[in-house]
Amino acid sequence: MLKKVLLGSLGAVLVLTAGILLGHFGIQRGSTTPDWVMDHLSHDRSLVPMCLSRELTKVPHMATSPGDEKTVQYMLKRWQDPDTGLDQAWREEYKVYLSFPDPNTPNKVTVVSPSDAVLYTAREKEKAYSSDQEDPEVVQPYAAYAPAGHPKVGLYPPTHRQADQEDPGVVQPYAAYAPAGHPKAINAAPYGVIGVLVYTDPWDINDGKMSDNNETYPYSWYMPPSGVERGSFNTHYGDMLTPYLAAKDDTYRIPEKNITGIPPIPTQPIGFEDAYALICELGGEPAPSEWQGAFNCTYNFGGPGFKPTSNFNNSDVKLDIYNREELKNSANVMGVIRGSVEPDRYVIYGNHRDSWVHGAIDPSSGTSVMLEVTRVLGRMVKQGKWRPRRSIIFGSWGAEEFGLIGSTEYTEVNNLNQSNVIYKIPVYIICSNATLRASGSPSAQSVILKASKQVKTPGSDSTSVYDNWIRYFNRTSPAYGVIPNVGFLTGAGSDYAAFIHFLGITSMDISYTYDRTKTRARIYPAYHTAYDTFDYASKFIDPGFTSHQTVARTAGNVLMRLADSLLLPFNCSDYAETLEGYLNKAMENTVLEYPVPAPISEPLQNAVRNFRSAATRLDHALSILRPLKVRRINDQLMLLDRAFLDPGAFPDRYGFRHVIWASSKAGQATFPGLADAYTRARSTGLDSDWKEAHRQLSILIQAIQGAAHTLGDAI
Amino acid sequence: MLKKVLLGSLGAVLVLTAGILLGHFGIQRGSTTPDWVMDHLSHDRSLVPMCLSRELTKVPHMATSPGDEKTVQYMLKRWQDPDTGLDQAWREEYKVYLSFPDPNTPNKVTVVSPSDAVLYTAREKEKAYSSDQEDPEVVQPYAAYAPAGHPKVGLYPPTHRQADQEDPGVVQPYAAYAPAGHPKAINAAPYGVIGVLVYTDPWDINDGKMSDNNETYPYSWYMPPSGVERGSFNTHYGDMLTPYLAAKDDTYRIPEKNITGIPPIPTQPIGFEDAYALICELGGEPAPSEWQGAFNCTYNFGGPGFKPTSNFNNSDVKLDIYNREELKNSANVMGVIRGSVEPDRYVIYGNHRDSWVHGAIDPSSGTSVMLEVTRVLGRMVKQGKWRPRRSIIFGSWGAEEFGLIGSTEYTEVNNLNQSNVIYKIPVYIICSNATLRASGSPSAQSVILKASKQVKTPGSDSTSVYDNWIRYFNRTSPAYGVIPNVGFLTGAGSDYAAFIHFLGITSMDISYTYDRTKTRARIYPAYHTAYDTFDYASKFIDPGFTSHQTVARTAGNVLMRLADSLLLPFNCSDYAETLEGYLNKAMENTVLEYPVPAPISEPLQNAVRNFRSAATRLDHALSILRPLKVRRINDQLMLLDRAFLDPGAFPDRYGFRHVIWASSKAGQATFPGLADAYTRARSTGLDSDWKEAHRQLSILIQAIQGAAHTLGDAI
Repeated sequence: MLKKVLLGSLGAVLVLTAGILLGHFGIQRGSTTPDWVMDHLSHDRSLVPMCLSRELTKVPHMATSPGDEKTVQYMLKRWQDPDTGLDQAWREEYKVYLSFPDPNTPNKVTVVSPSDAVLYTAREKEKAYSSDQEDPEVVQPYAAYAPAGHPKVGLYPPTHRQADQEDPGVVQPYAAYAPAGHPKAINAAPYGVIGVLVYTDPWDINDGKMSDNNETYPYSWYMPPSGVERGSFNTHYGDMLTPYLAAKDDTYRIPEKNITGIPPIPTQPIGFEDAYALICELGGEPAPSEWQGAFNCTYNFGGPGFKPTSNFNNSDVKLDIYNREELKNSANVMGVIRGSVEPDRYVIYGNHRDSWVHGAIDPSSGTSVMLEVTRVLGRMVKQGKWRPRRSIIFGSWGAEEFGLIGSTEYTEVNNLNQSNVIYKIPVYIICSNATLRASGSPSAQSVILKASKQVKTPGSDSTSVYDNWIRYFNRTSPAYGVIPNVGFLTGAGSDYAAFIHFLGITSMDISYTYDRTKTRARIYPAYHTAYDTFDYASKFIDPGFTSHQTVARTAGNVLMRLADSLLLPFNCSDYAETLEGYLNKAMENTVLEYPVPAPISEPLQNAVRNFRSAATRLDHALSILRPLKVRRINDQLMLLDRAFLDPGAFPDRYGFRHVIWASSKAGQATFPGLADAYTRARSTGLDSDWKEAHRQLSILIQAIQGAAHTLGDAI
Repeated sequence: MLKKVLLGSLGAVLVLTAGILLGHFGIQRGSTTPDWVMDHLSHDRSLVPMCLSRELTKVPHMATSPGDEKTVQYMLKRWQDPDTGLDQAWREEYKVYLSFPDPNTPNKVTVVSPSDAVLYTAREKEKAYSSDQEDPEVVQPYAAYAPAGHPKVGLYPPTHRQADQEDPGVVQPYAAYAPAGHPKAINAAPYGVIGVLVYTDPWDINDGKMSDNNETYPYSWYMPPSGVERGSFNTHYGDMLTPYLAAKDDTYRIPEKNITGIPPIPTQPIGFEDAYALICELGGEPAPSEWQGAFNCTYNFGGPGFKPTSNFNNSDVKLDIYNREELKNSANVMGVIRGSVEPDRYVIYGNHRDSWVHGAIDPSSGTSVMLEVTRVLGRMVKQGKWRPRRSIIFGSWGAEEFGLIGSTEYTEVNNLNQSNVIYKIPVYIICSNATLRASGSPSAQSVILKASKQVKTPGSDSTSVYDNWIRYFNRTSPAYGVIPNVGFLTGAGSDYAAFIHFLGITSMDISYTYDRTKTRARIYPAYHTAYDTFDYASKFIDPGFTSHQTVARTAGNVLMRLADSLLLPFNCSDYAETLEGYLNKAMENTVLEYPVPAPISEPLQNAVRNFRSAATRLDHALSILRPLKVRRINDQLMLLDRAFLDPGAFPDRYGFRHVIWASSKAGQATFPGLADAYTRARSTGLDSDWKEAHRQLSILIQAIQGAAHTLGDAI
């Protein structure tokens, strides 16, 4: 298929690097040198193909399904294996609020007129390609079918060029399309919209390919016309009935009517074949050029209704909601390798386990990589040959697709959302998907890049992941020149959300992707559809599973650097570079042109300068490190991201406290709260909005100064 | 005067204890044994009398006054002294919102009828005893004069027996009296009250003594009839215009109209001579017996108006507000002794510097004790003879009387309200007043008691502070039997508030007090009046300043145990005992009889049991401690109080996050949020109130489980 480029992980030549660190900084007590890791993670004995084909993708395993439970059992068995398991493994049960299809009885019906055949066509066609008979129609709360035509039912044409910038928080980006600034899903209701149909336009996902006969799966990796991309429309994360509390049996639950963050109106994803039939019949004025997609017709605004010449003209709508909400148990599977020297410092490696349907890539590619990493590390631990300096916690999260529930409940269960345990977790790694990208806190960039130099790209004995990566996806850094592009974890696209945004734990997301110069597809086309199967993955995504092995090596390398190195492999100057970039962008945008009070860009520049100085001083301290200072400096490195938390920064945005990485409407690489507040103030001109902009500026300055303080010398 | 009993501090025999700890646990690198401390703190060379008489109480030093600035300069000079100063000392400036008297122009006038002579009589008489001519009339924002008589102006008779239980947050307890449950100050407005006069009844403060001629100061320690006890009525803390942000020049400030937490109506303290004239003239039904005070008349409800036979009958009211609000600079004076082994762990020793008028006791007794402690420690540091294991930060806070402003801004300035620096502060000690009591987190009880055994009570060569204390003020502990009574830091009475309630830093408040069996006075009678002068303090509070010296020795002992001991001297089993007491009280109160869902007391009992087990295991771990575990266990001890923080627990209560120590209307030793919610639910019977009770229960369980987790083994 398409040429692939490794964007995230890296190898296993931890040995040499660790040796250098140790030789320079002191004796690493209680930790053996893991020179076996690369070898084992390279071997053909890799579990990955077996996991993927035999265990993890045979059945659909949406949250709480029999397939999910089967995977739980399988992982527990692996992690409790006396020869290759971990020190401990257990399941943690939560009772969470989910939504399931009720195929027989629509529980809410609003009949406007009878015209209700479209959805079932779509679903039936999609099923024809599925490898399993279980019902893949897990839909979000309140998701429902609502054909367009009624002027107040929104059928939103795509806005491929701007959708990237909307960053709607937990909502899976692109699950729904709507022009930037135009209300969609949860925002549509106040505009009088009573239902939303969402679809994925072939322009965005299929490079315009639409044919069922030879252009799409099973003939290529492109999404078939009947493919339905699901996604959560929940703007909060975690269990909806127990905000900020772990969803135990006895936990207080808010009344269902008090749930916020989900659309108050029915929302239903459909395939593009149905969207095509509807959009090309829409009447009204032509939509702007950036709304136009791959269909061979002009996308019109659609209001009021269909074209006078359309068969649908004067059609009305019947809305049937075929889902019901239920409290269900969902499990996290947890495993631990205990640290030898600093067992109270935890490196968390997580991945979700539930999928929308079969989820061969999302999430089972990540699950199989995690199982492979634990198999190799676990065996060395069981044989007494190795034990990391710090503890490693492995988490297989449940119910991610419903709104990052498993990982969020985990952060809440022992008051992890308070200060007590937070400090123990230096980093959170997510590896949700073997074909994505690498993102992380800027301080984590260097460890990813270092590791990527030590792993070979799939199918090559000479080209490193780093070399391949820099060729296909790079950026220019003031400090390093051209380097591979490591993204940022803005928004809340996956399980890292509770860790980075709420807890301020330095996080990264490692995965593999394809050559983006050859396709406009924002992700592999079967993403979140019923076509994400073992067949699809093994034929079109990763034949031979060599990329999976590369990701396992890379994730293993990063993980062991984090868990084993005497000094945490974080680089604060890289964080300073990012803040300077944000500052420059803010200045360009004249974000700082406040009407009142006058000279307030100065304190922000001072704060960033102060941060840079502190980072430089800390870098220098690292170079002349005395052994006794190690834990202290590790604390500084570990706490850096936490210094950017402010619980009061975004009072209306559930769970967002990180003032650098919160998602932003501005969609630019600059300070999100400041940019949004400024944009709003400039647009309204209201004094109260300028005041909020000033408040955001004060919060930002205080956070950056605090971060600089964190990096500074003790007293 | 009255026999005094030491309630808080303790001595300086740190040597022996430190030796035991060190011998048992390992070598304490870089820290010398401070066997000189008790000697020096015992010497007659003590600065205390000199500080008090010569420097600190010559002039009034309310916040930002010339007297305050003079004290700043004096402290900086001391702390920067090349022979006896600290490693560093500096001033930190904040621009804060304060209220000052405007003697010439009333800025708000509501004339109802002319009858405005009372206040000025009171003030003039009070001034006659003052040793200085500066204007002592610093009043709170919106405080004003409002004689009673109008049915809607509240003149609240005292409720001495219940006032103790009201715990009105930052409001200085007893500054205003009102029956429990009856609206006062900030709560009065919704009931139609348009102004409040508050006074201190002789029953509460003077053991009933009222005579100006021979019963009160200058003939005894009792408050003269003209004495006016001031106090803040602000229910929030910190600068009012910059909530949760440090009040720097460029910081965003909320509009003044958005200030919350202060009474919307005029509130004026008056002396009891004026209250007497008014109360005994009030008509209406007799008030309940617990409202009656020391005046030789029946306290009537007063509504409507005065007795028909009174000269005041049919009088109306003129309200003149003689104050103005201003942004003013206020300074914290900071000093540091750098730690030798763990410089990134901070013990904070703080005391406020501003007073209502002269403040010989509150706060200058604490300031002089702090100066004495720093003189002795600073000299040893300058001579190169000693350096503590951890860093010590000394803070002289400004503008405490206006609402704990200096200490709160300090916690905000470098994002201390976030997670980054929090963890570095094991403990905060406040020593605001040499004649108060000892309170603290339960885990800090043991270090106070240990120290108290090593210091002699004033004027004795054989009786320890501990022996004296247990005789006059004790309690029965299930674990220890009868022991001296160490209180809890519930509410927000002084500068510990931002540390314990917002940051969850284990805190204590150490001070001296008198024999409570001999007086009903809840505090020394000149408290917060213009009579709190050097003359008063040296004649009636601490002749010869021997108690001051004892406090210096005690605070020094505690401080050095915290800063120098290898293992933090905190005892988690004592925390477990407190939680068990709270649980028992909650069960007695049938706090747990929820209508729905049924069996939810079980999880709370489990949580407390779990905490106890973890505490016991940690105690055991301490007894077999290996040196490498020291820092890890210290982290657990340090973070224990932080585990009880929940930012969502009390959304309507500014700055309160600690679910065990938050103030409570229930006024009982039990879980505050649960008790208040239950009381309310039982009273209203509303389903929504029962739901809130359940929510509080879930928060509590999660916090206690999280605390148990903090004490548990690493992984």
